[in-house]
Amino acid sequence: MIDGFWFPFFVFLGACGAAAATGAMFPPGRWYVQLNKPVWVPPNWLFPVAWSSIYLLISFAGARIVHLEGSGVALMFWALQIAFNTLWTPIFFGLRHFRASLIVMAFLWLSVSSAMLAHFYVDVYAGLAFVPYFLWVSVAGMLNIAMYRLNPNIKPLKPADLD
Amino acid sequence: MIDGFWFPFFVFLGACGAAAATGAMFPPGRWYVQLNKPVWVPPNWLFPVAWSSIYLLISFAGARIVHLEGSGVALMFWALQIAFNTLWTPIFFGLRHFRASLIVMAFLWLSVSSAMLAHFYVDVYAGLAFVPYFLWVSVAGMLNIAMYRLNPNIKPLKPADLD
Repeated sequence: MIDGFWFPFFVFLGACGAAAATGAMFPPGRWYVQLNKPVWVPPNWLFPVAWSSIYLLISFAGARIVHLEGSGVALMFWALQIAFNTLWTPIFFGLRHFRASLIVMAFLWLSVSSAMLAHFYVDVYAGLAFVPYFLWVSVAGMLNIAMYRLNPNIKPLKPADLD
Repeated sequence: MIDGFWFPFFVFLGACGAAAATGAMFPPGRWYVQLNKPVWVPPNWLFPVAWSSIYLLISFAGARIVHLEGSGVALMFWALQIAFNTLWTPIFFGLRHFRASLIVMAFLWLSVSSAMLAHFYVDVYAGLAFVPYFLWVSVAGMLNIAMYRLNPNIKPLKPADLD
């Protein structure tokens, strides 16, 4: 079972589920609606579509290489990107901490770039499956920078101090 | 460089850094202080000490096996555990969503157990390095259940609805 494709595919998809759960648990809401956004901001419906596709693709990538010799470094970067991916949403939507979200985004972009290259090194289809993620996270990074610049007066929340 | 021990060690430690950042960004604060806790709750100073030790140990485990043949499944579970680890703190301290935090904790416990077994299968020292994590997350799970039972009236926060 564990030697095949589907068991690893669903384990990787489970890890993506942790990242996706942040989107469900920390939804944009009316705070996000009233933020200043650049004219080129993607439409709202595109975000869940893009992320769902990306999670399926990178689960495919992981499952494709998990049993191949020399896949360790690629899987290490797979682990790195999912940790930073899971971190971003709570920082941005949960804390509204724009500066910290930019730092996390920079690490996410670096980890996705590294994961894409490392997957290409092991298997071309696995590498290709990371390309949409790389492109999307590049757009997300530019959007994060634009939001930071266009909303200079956002105060981070401090949930620990709320009653 | 990437073929040695230290480069992978620091990449895994970077992934742990994403999980650790949730502890710094979503600190317990006074809300946590006034919660009902079981008599056996570990002292506050033990939490950062335990987590720092665990992060060093599992980074060692990952770096030890990353270049070994057949380490793919273990690294897959390494990725799974760090995603759920990063998710737990924002759900508990950021949203105060006890029920969701219990579900995340169950997945975290399963993923740490699987990672420990899979690391033992590849390398005994890597497996041993996961044992303190397994024990600690078992305690954390029992603590999470106790907190849920002892604080039945906690209302989850909805950061999206705050102004």
